[in-house]
Amino acid sequence: MKPLRVALLGCGTVGTEVVRLLDEQADDLAARVGAPLELAGVAVRRLDRAREHVAPELVTTDAMSLVTRDDVDLVVEVIGGIEPARSLILAAMKTGKSVVTANKALLAEDGATIFAAAREYGADLYYEAAVAGAIPLLRPLRESLVGDHVHKVLGIVNGTTNYILDQMDTHGASFTDALEEAQSLGYAEADPTADVEGFDAAAKAAILAQLAFHTPVTAADVHREGITEVTAADVAGAKAMDSVVKLLAICERIPDPDGRNGGRGVSVRVYPAMIPRSHPLASVREAYNAVFVEARSAGSLMFYGAGAGGAPTASAVLGDLVAVARNRVGGTRGPVEVTYAELPVLPMGETITRYYVQLDVADRSGVLAQVAELFARNGVSIQAVRQEGHGDDAQLVVVTHRAPDAALAATVEALRRLDIVREVAAVMRVESG
Amino acid sequence: MKPLRVALLGCGTVGTEVVRLLDEQADDLAARVGAPLELAGVAVRRLDRAREHVAPELVTTDAMSLVTRDDVDLVVEVIGGIEPARSLILAAMKTGKSVVTANKALLAEDGATIFAAAREYGADLYYEAAVAGAIPLLRPLRESLVGDHVHKVLGIVNGTTNYILDQMDTHGASFTDALEEAQSLGYAEADPTADVEGFDAAAKAAILAQLAFHTPVTAADVHREGITEVTAADVAGAKAMDSVVKLLAICERIPDPDGRNGGRGVSVRVYPAMIPRSHPLASVREAYNAVFVEARSAGSLMFYGAGAGGAPTASAVLGDLVAVARNRVGGTRGPVEVTYAELPVLPMGETITRYYVQLDVADRSGVLAQVAELFARNGVSIQAVRQEGHGDDAQLVVVTHRAPDAALAATVEALRRLDIVREVAAVMRVESG
Repeated sequence: MKPLRVALLGCGTVGTEVVRLLDEQADDLAARVGAPLELAGVAVRRLDRAREHVAPELVTTDAMSLVTRDDVDLVVEVIGGIEPARSLILAAMKTGKSVVTANKALLAEDGATIFAAAREYGADLYYEAAVAGAIPLLRPLRESLVGDHVHKVLGIVNGTTNYILDQMDTHGASFTDALEEAQSLGYAEADPTADVEGFDAAAKAAILAQLAFHTPVTAADVHREGITEVTAADVAGAKAMDSVVKLLAICERIPDPDGRNGGRGVSVRVYPAMIPRSHPLASVREAYNAVFVEARSAGSLMFYGAGAGGAPTASAVLGDLVAVARNRVGGTRGPVEVTYAELPVLPMGETITRYYVQLDVADRSGVLAQVAELFARNGVSIQAVRQEGHGDDAQLVVVTHRAPDAALAATVEALRRLDIVREVAAVMRVESG
Repeated sequence: MKPLRVALLGCGTVGTEVVRLLDEQADDLAARVGAPLELAGVAVRRLDRAREHVAPELVTTDAMSLVTRDDVDLVVEVIGGIEPARSLILAAMKTGKSVVTANKALLAEDGATIFAAAREYGADLYYEAAVAGAIPLLRPLRESLVGDHVHKVLGIVNGTTNYILDQMDTHGASFTDALEEAQSLGYAEADPTADVEGFDAAAKAAILAQLAFHTPVTAADVHREGITEVTAADVAGAKAMDSVVKLLAICERIPDPDGRNGGRGVSVRVYPAMIPRSHPLASVREAYNAVFVEARSAGSLMFYGAGAGGAPTASAVLGDLVAVARNRVGGTRGPVEVTYAELPVLPMGETITRYYVQLDVADRSGVLAQVAELFARNGVSIQAVRQEGHGDDAQLVVVTHRAPDAALAATVEALRRLDIVREVAAVMRVESG
């Protein structure tokens, strides 16, 4: 069989691993594809680094020439970011290449352009590695569950923040100390913003929501709160409730009172929340990822595994590479994104959530009555209250029933203005699954 | 768009649910496929039952005529068993139909014939529902992990036996009582043989091994032990070791001392075994299924969900139906099974396992020394020993290190012949993950 020629864009951790595996598993891959896979070129930003497993003559800084070359069949993009990745992918598809990408930022920000181009040029576009590394999650959503009606996707999709929160939970560490440890171990980057502020998780949530609900969702549509404000006290508060704090990505179909099938819209959000320790997501430790999917017929499904790292991400890239290569050998192509639903993304205020609120209060009789009255006035029903301490240490912990997020937020605002409330010491959402 | 016409073979629990969902989700499915799906006919064994959602004129007992009709595009087979399912599937593929099947028995017994026919006729063949119901497991193995090197698949793939073992663990019930309860709740059939003797799990293990290792494996190749001999004492013994008894399906690549890439062969087996309570599979309760996959690059992955039942199985069938329908609309086809590896299936005796052995022994000094000497003579190293009781109740519990199963079995045989051993009260394998 004539070999299929692969252009690799980017040769960082994932790219290096892809090159190594293409070499090491060459025979297996050829058997699975039905033709050998051959590296045609590797585009890098700078030529000044020696690269293992890569013949120097294959390395180029001219990525655009590489992806449009006639002798290239398959393009693997692991550069990340919006540009030049977008232009390169579009040029590759336009010149008849099949594309595998791990680029969550691009798909979350401008997936519409990429998907439209794939349709227009009849190009294969696979991107399993963009969300949750090696965990097969997008293919099940795109294909296995395509005959079902997904209600909810709930998951831990960022390993860095899970590592930090797990350290805070296990050792009572502060956010700053846990972040420093994560950085020293290589779990967090020198600039951790994308992870700790929830941008990475929000991009993944946008991709998941789009696939789950067949509706266009971009990163900008995702309500996003990071974990930088999570304190040791929050984590201790969760512990006292036999819960644990996790950064959750939640994609939810909001039912329509009129019973319309697609629902009133979708809610897509990322924030730290307390979940009961008995919930399977609570036992996801260290930098692991796990995602729950709830569908009408399939019921509850969970997917668990390593969500990041060179080898797991390379595994997902290679799986996609074999798929697009097989398609080429067979003269076929993979599924095309269908976003026919056009469901609105509802504002956070309309989302139904539960709150945990911890208040430093004056140690006076009638405090609880005043606080309770304020919740009631805002239409928020209280599920549980705990009073602790005396004098200056008097604390009130309130857990609400489900209510629109806007009503809960308004309640917290009103509590801040209440003179018997010294401080709203902690506010966190509570998810029960 | 011209509708795609579906022939349904079998109208039991799953078939009825498929018909219902085809009707209820018609608009969504049409949007996802790019063409409406239309029921062309339903083949049943007897006409004497009224069927909801099915127009009487669509029902026929002549399945062969239905699957070979020119106006049928897609065939869904949910009859189960070897014949007539095999002949019908072969005839459907021969006459250009795409096939979706949930038939694990057929694929495990004679997958080679079915896969060869799919290749020969260029027909799509999807079968996600054959293993673990709605849990997307086959598609990840067939596609997502196709660029990786799978070491091991370890899972709970039979809900009935998991329900029974869970009841035995939770309530200390006997096998017989737990089985009766499972039957009264509809988790177990009147004739529970296929489940409790491990035939169902063995068929699934054969399919999983074939996909994971790209090598032909049939149900007859699978070493199979059921749970009928598991006693309340075994379960209590597991508890004492902070473990739990689960019926496990294990597909393992046995490494080659010479370092050959594919390994020396594969081991495929189903038996009840003790696993530590800290293992994620230990917390799989009731009739749920979960499967661990270990791959070289992807690391450990877990898939969890409802492994059986009409709705979850129908979800998997519909996912496949949309996939084959999309392929038809796009003029493409799905992946073809590649079993290029031809790895031998090794006999159970060569598999490396660990044993838990409980002995009723004479209460005499030197008993432990004699027993230990016997293990040593058989080349089996002991990991832990616990002595309990006195006089007629004296018991010895031995947990071994890893050793070839044949050596462990020979040790147990020799123990039975040892005069100080009154009875080998329990023997069970121990899996650590």
